[in-house]
Amino acid sequence: MGTLFRVDTFGESHGPAVGVVVDGCPPRLALSTEDIQRELDRRRPGQSRITTQRRESDKVEILSGVHQGLTLGTPIAMVVRNEDARAGDYDEMQTKFRPSHADFTYQAKYGIRAWEGGGRASARETIGRVAAGAVARKLLTAECGVEIVAYVKQVYTAEAVVDPSKVTIDEVEANIARCPDPRAAEEMIALIDQARMNGDSLGGVVEAVARGVPVGLGDPVFEKIDAELAKAMLSLPAAKGFEIGSGFAGARMTGSQHNDLFYRQGDRIRTRTNHSGGVQGGITNGEDIVLRVAFKPTATILREQETVDEHGNETVLKPRGRHDPCVLPRAVPIVEAMIALVLADRYLCHRGQCGAGK
Amino acid sequence: MGTLFRVDTFGESHGPAVGVVVDGCPPRLALSTEDIQRELDRRRPGQSRITTQRRESDKVEILSGVHQGLTLGTPIAMVVRNEDARAGDYDEMQTKFRPSHADFTYQAKYGIRAWEGGGRASARETIGRVAAGAVARKLLTAECGVEIVAYVKQVYTAEAVVDPSKVTIDEVEANIARCPDPRAAEEMIALIDQARMNGDSLGGVVEAVARGVPVGLGDPVFEKIDAELAKAMLSLPAAKGFEIGSGFAGARMTGSQHNDLFYRQGDRIRTRTNHSGGVQGGITNGEDIVLRVAFKPTATILREQETVDEHGNETVLKPRGRHDPCVLPRAVPIVEAMIALVLADRYLCHRGQCGAGK
Amino acid sequence: MGTLFRVDTFGESHGPAVGVVVDGCPPRLALSTEDIQRELDRRRPGQSRITTQRRESDKVEILSGVHQGLTLGTPIAMVVRNEDARAGDYDEMQTKFRPSHADFTYQAKYGIRAWEGGGRASARETIGRVAAGAVARKLLTAECGVEIVAYVKQVYTAEAVVDPSKVTIDEVEANIARCPDPRAAEEMIALIDQARMNGDSLGGVVEAVARGVPVGLGDPVFEKIDAELAKAMLSLPAAKGFEIGSGFAGARMTGSQHNDLFYRQGDRIRTRTNHSGGVQGGITNGEDIVLRVAFKPTATILREQETVDEHGNETVLKPRGRHDPCVLPRAVPIVEAMIALVLADRYLCHRGQCGAGK
Amino acid sequence: MGTLFRVDTFGESHGPAVGVVVDGCPPRLALSTEDIQRELDRRRPGQSRITTQRRESDKVEILSGVHQGLTLGTPIAMVVRNEDARAGDYDEMQTKFRPSHADFTYQAKYGIRAWEGGGRASARETIGRVAAGAVARKLLTAECGVEIVAYVKQVYTAEAVVDPSKVTIDEVEANIARCPDPRAAEEMIALIDQARMNGDSLGGVVEAVARGVPVGLGDPVFEKIDAELAKAMLSLPAAKGFEIGSGFAGARMTGSQHNDLFYRQGDRIRTRTNHSGGVQGGITNGEDIVLRVAFKPTATILREQETVDEHGNETVLKPRGRHDPCVLPRAVPIVEAMIALVLADRYLCHRGQCGAGK
Repeated sequence: MGTLFRVDTFGESHGPAVGVVVDGCPPRLALSTEDIQRELDRRRPGQSRITTQRRESDKVEILSGVHQGLTLGTPIAMVVRNEDARAGDYDEMQTKFRPSHADFTYQAKYGIRAWEGGGRASARETIGRVAAGAVARKLLTAECGVEIVAYVKQVYTAEAVVDPSKVTIDEVEANIARCPDPRAAEEMIALIDQARMNGDSLGGVVEAVARGVPVGLGDPVFEKIDAELAKAMLSLPAAKGFEIGSGFAGARMTGSQHNDLFYRQGDRIRTRTNHSGGVQGGITNGEDIVLRVAFKPTATILREQETVDEHGNETVLKPRGRHDPCVLPRAVPIVEAMIALVLADRYLCHRGQCGAGK
Repeated sequence: MGTLFRVDTFGESHGPAVGVVVDGCPPRLALSTEDIQRELDRRRPGQSRITTQRRESDKVEILSGVHQGLTLGTPIAMVVRNEDARAGDYDEMQTKFRPSHADFTYQAKYGIRAWEGGGRASARETIGRVAAGAVARKLLTAECGVEIVAYVKQVYTAEAVVDPSKVTIDEVEANIARCPDPRAAEEMIALIDQARMNGDSLGGVVEAVARGVPVGLGDPVFEKIDAELAKAMLSLPAAKGFEIGSGFAGARMTGSQHNDLFYRQGDRIRTRTNHSGGVQGGITNGEDIVLRVAFKPTATILREQETVDEHGNETVLKPRGRHDPCVLPRAVPIVEAMIALVLADRYLCHRGQCGAGK
Repeated sequence: MGTLFRVDTFGESHGPAVGVVVDGCPPRLALSTEDIQRELDRRRPGQSRITTQRRESDKVEILSGVHQGLTLGTPIAMVVRNEDARAGDYDEMQTKFRPSHADFTYQAKYGIRAWEGGGRASARETIGRVAAGAVARKLLTAECGVEIVAYVKQVYTAEAVVDPSKVTIDEVEANIARCPDPRAAEEMIALIDQARMNGDSLGGVVEAVARGVPVGLGDPVFEKIDAELAKAMLSLPAAKGFEIGSGFAGARMTGSQHNDLFYRQGDRIRTRTNHSGGVQGGITNGEDIVLRVAFKPTATILREQETVDEHGNETVLKPRGRHDPCVLPRAVPIVEAMIALVLADRYLCHRGQCGAGK
Repeated sequence: MGTLFRVDTFGESHGPAVGVVVDGCPPRLALSTEDIQRELDRRRPGQSRITTQRRESDKVEILSGVHQGLTLGTPIAMVVRNEDARAGDYDEMQTKFRPSHADFTYQAKYGIRAWEGGGRASARETIGRVAAGAVARKLLTAECGVEIVAYVKQVYTAEAVVDPSKVTIDEVEANIARCPDPRAAEEMIALIDQARMNGDSLGGVVEAVARGVPVGLGDPVFEKIDAELAKAMLSLPAAKGFEIGSGFAGARMTGSQHNDLFYRQGDRIRTRTNHSGGVQGGITNGEDIVLRVAFKPTATILREQETVDEHGNETVLKPRGRHDPCVLPRAVPIVEAMIALVLADRYLCHRGQCGAGK
């Protein structure tokens, strides 16, 4: 993933480790293990009663690319060891395909799969993304003051009212639902608690905003910034939809309602509304980037379900194992990381193609 | 765009030509100018009273990569000359930024732009995509019998009822709205007519289905098939949202409602429902791929709007020039082309990595 | 080819056209058809008595990416029509594989080939490279004053004595051998004349220098600047070897002879010798880049040769058709173009990753 | 590096670890730590009296992508910890640029460098390549029986006589010079011993052959197999030249001498000579691939040399630290690894584009 700021993750859920290599990060950026660990702790399992109880300390080690606290410009490899890998919980999954998981498709594609805990398809893969995202974030902060905030906008039927232009990370981190609307947060927590007790799971929506984005990031055709963001978001486990700006609501509008009129504010050219979500013609216009990602309910539910085994026999499966009844709260730092990765890459490409002076 | 089946478009709206190079198409595929022209005619301007009246014959010429009716395995270059390029209509746009167009962002990024007709940001760029998509389609048909059908699902408030598993291209092409639900099609046409008379424009949703897709296409992490599709769709002009399978509706479901249970049908492993939209863990499972793309209303409206000019002065702009009051009908073949491009590329990559026998 | 300055050529020898798309060229660079044509005229067939007599005017048309004499930052497509395509000359080659040509390997790889004139494997493909290289050169001149000069260093047994640090393009263009050592040039011309009369052909070596290259271009591992140059050169038809700096002669040296000692010259850090050829650790050090490319003798010779036909039958072939008895003089502008393409791409990548201030 | 079989190395000489991620290796290939370790042991320091005495066990750990002894089709991450990292030896290098090393260019490019032991520019980076190459080799052996043998062809003035079509790995491994010509090997060892006693170093040439390569690997233009090989070889530390087949000697030949005439041998089409080195038009023809790589003498010599420090002051440096007086014997497994990586990638791309049946 990426053209100049390139990211490659590796690792299976129950293998020795998961990790990432970040290739192309500019030199002389201050970077410490703590910068990475802070973000990993936000996605860590077991952080609250509404997340999975798998116990992983998720301690990151930086193997390369950093020297005396500064990046070298060379590849940054980061690794997290897998610890609480109870393969026993997954015995039944060795042969039976869990519904709406990737067991069947991996087996069909590769003729083999690491069946314990979903292997490569496990959400543990996102550790590498969050670690890489933490690097991208430091770069964006240092170079151009971009600020990225994601939050839970919806869980099942509970919807939050949030002003993306003002929301802060502190408001998001104020509750375990990671929803900055306290009333909605309570409702979400109650819904998730109930789902867990029912052995069921819930879907939802994460909304995110990037503020202070420089004008001019993104490229005209296939590498439009919104196209890159869409790809980044749909590459997340359980993501089923993506919107930017007006999104699907824009399909029910007229041009005279939807057009963002330009005006002048000091030296800047601004738009009076932001239905475009900060992107016009695939290129950032300096307004806030606002996007939303729909997540389906966790596929793992503690209920008996019909399925088929590797030999094609119909059977019944009742998953065990620890899981999140709702991935949304833990998805928040992951969405932020993905935005940071896309912006960092497009920032470097823009600097390369168009120079610093424009 | 693409790893093995690579596509690179070029051309500005009012430059000499637009076109595309397709690099990596397998050899010995039957391919004629007619195969390409048929699809171009479906996206051509002036094809009905509800599309733009720009007069372009859009005749394609194949410059390379085909020999005596068969592909050579070498790059296929295809060119369409621009004809009805009335730059005069755009004089005012030379200095004024049209609201919600790419004029401002291009100028800010590059310090220059081809201001006539949107230049590179014009929808004429999609000619190259449709031409390339026609090649990809022939490949998919020849190699694995994939069938791709897109249609207008919604225009403004008018919504169609369509069964993606059964809809045919003939039903889509039966009316100028490209909506296979005749009742909704009438309503859409009336809405578009009215918008045009008002000098306004309308948004909408295209839905598309790919049937007969082989199991196993797509890759686990950043090159998930749904991520590639999302990128392809959001790279289209005016696209603001993407859904696959349950999409945003899935966010309001529980796991026990959403999970697609496996069962056996003859030799195949099937799912009873298809909330996954044909993709699990980023890899096709053999069920229909079903996706939706939200398009904002056309930014060109024939009304006075506030804006700013290149020198930063606030001003007023009343666009002239021909335009589509609603891009949806012409977007249908473009969405199909993009799906074909993604599937063709992932098909070749899968064959490369996993071989033919798996 | 390329990461930020990307080049994709297309076209077969006897198809409608050959050409190239350059994607990623920075905006606002002055660029005219004449800039391109000048370089194409240097590689054109029929330019002197020692080159092939195929008559092609090789007039280039710029289809996109340039507006009122300036680049737009969008893809630049350039096309040259094929004119003097006497397919008749090649009838025998429809079924017989010409020795040391690509006929057999193309047929074996693709199961099809454009047999007229070598199709895609024809040296006409290099038209696209020279056109793209002309763009890269303008960029390098405008941005950092790089000067690239190539020349014929050796033809068969005739070797030139040239000082790479001083040689000028005018000296190179002073004779039809493109060899700046007049005595050697005469000998080369005589050797080529004789080879043509014998229906035979000759190999040789092109040497090239890039002066004024900024310090810091190239990347530590797989994208070392010398690795990219080696790839670029070996991608040329008939190239069989590549050297930078001391090259194969360096294999016969000791470290104490070979090491380039650093000293200070004004503000610059220089090296007393330049065995490194301007590159250390894959990154430019500001000294002249000096490289050499070995070309085998043209495979087309007007003599009877044993070969095999498509059906596997042994047979005899006497090629007809026009050809160069020695490709070296026409290879000079092509080698320059390839150097320009590599440097332009690495220049943009360096600016992207490391910024302008370093 | 690579399109479908992708390799990304990481790590500095004196950082915590070096390693590699291999992404795109086909599934169900038998792969164990021993397969990797065997090759690493061939490049390990301290293996004989003529190599550096740095003591590293270079034990590899596979972190991902392998399950119960079989590849999963997912990224294979491999790591080797750095152990004998005596930074103290390098104190002087913290500020002084070692002649003909990458110290100066890294500092100039990045404004920072890991000065201990060359950091990223250290030959320890090639550990990742050798590990990845071991995977590629297993793949090539399993899928198509390719056999790759490299050996020392020349050290300084000592040249070996070897028949590439017959040489075996056992012959190569029979002596510490890795030269299958015993007489030349003795001479080489004596020369290296003498250079070490003089505190000097020697250059040389590695020759390599790949036998049993399928017909059809490689692509017509920029991804010619010889271009990819040239890039792979010049990306090696200290490489200054590359030849395939006749190489620079071919420049002194006529076409009638150089052309490889086709004949039929059973079902195969063969060539009577192999001046092409197994590649025609950038595509393999089934004959042996034969190539040579020139290496300059090791830049580290234990002698006082003039140089400049970080502040631009002229000074004198006498390197300490352990080093190889001649890199050639240890370069042999690295060259083999790079060939394997290129062939594996082109093999998968060919299977993707052209299918299995051709």
